[in-house]
Amino acid sequence: MEGMQSVQCGAGCPLCAGPGGAQIWSDEAWRVVRVADDDFPAFYRVIAKPHVVEFTDLPLPEQQRCMALVCSVERVLRKQLAPTKINLASLGNMTPHLHWHVIARFDWDSHYPQPVWGTAQRSVEPSALALLPMPLARLDEAVHLGLHSPYT
Amino acid sequence: MEGMQSVQCGAGCPLCAGPGGAQIWSDEAWRVVRVADDDFPAFYRVIAKPHVVEFTDLPLPEQQRCMALVCSVERVLRKQLAPTKINLASLGNMTPHLHWHVIARFDWDSHYPQPVWGTAQRSVEPSALALLPMPLARLDEAVHLGLHSPYT
Repeated sequence: MEGMQSVQCGAGCPLCAGPGGAQIWSDEAWRVVRVADDDFPAFYRVIAKPHVVEFTDLPLPEQQRCMALVCSVERVLRKQLAPTKINLASLGNMTPHLHWHVIARFDWDSHYPQPVWGTAQRSVEPSALALLPMPLARLDEAVHLGLHSPYT
Repeated sequence: MEGMQSVQCGAGCPLCAGPGGAQIWSDEAWRVVRVADDDFPAFYRVIAKPHVVEFTDLPLPEQQRCMALVCSVERVLRKQLAPTKINLASLGNMTPHLHWHVIARFDWDSHYPQPVWGTAQRSVEPSALALLPMPLARLDEAVHLGLHSPYT
């Protein structure tokens, strides 16, 4: 966390007040969670623990650390799920506390090829979770293991 | 470009066939363009020149180079425009050729706080361009200059 300056946390910041998802992994400065989203079950977030707003608020080593974590999650999702595409994003308009979305997208998912924030294109039967190539518990375990292996 | 393996370009890939916007800067492996978007005039893209699909297809030095370019654009947008938020994203569902969106968002813009791919929240009068704190030509120049200065 050295050099990672936290600004004052806004009242009610949900990523200061809580984990922001099912926690998969953490260290002193970062945590990785899985978001509960029925349409996009393979949806993880890499979240700064301090209340940092923009990516360039981080010093370079922490930017690189952050992207190493993002890449670790991306690699596991690609290996385990062979998704049509990975989507990465750091938006934070609603919650201006630095967090990266790492989402496995499939050509059969409800919004593909639209972004997950766009317009639904189809309904998915029986469910996205049922169509995922592996159970979420095993995917979480693989993401967790990936975060413990070398990042590069 | 060393170590940056290009996969075969899909027929009709628009980012292989053309610049994908108004070119602001380029080197052997990357280019930065400004996207023509009436709702979001301060919308830039960092685009890999080779046909790379996912961020983790890049070797680590090129990942770091890419994010240094993204951060350079982000820093200039923050300094010149003091936006409400910066949005960063690498999606590529429609165009699976690695490109990063770097977008200055304002609390008055048409979609805020929704993502630019979400639902419009308001109409903006007279135009987003007119409300931008500086002319686009000067912003482009600042982005260009930022890309020539040290990245860290």
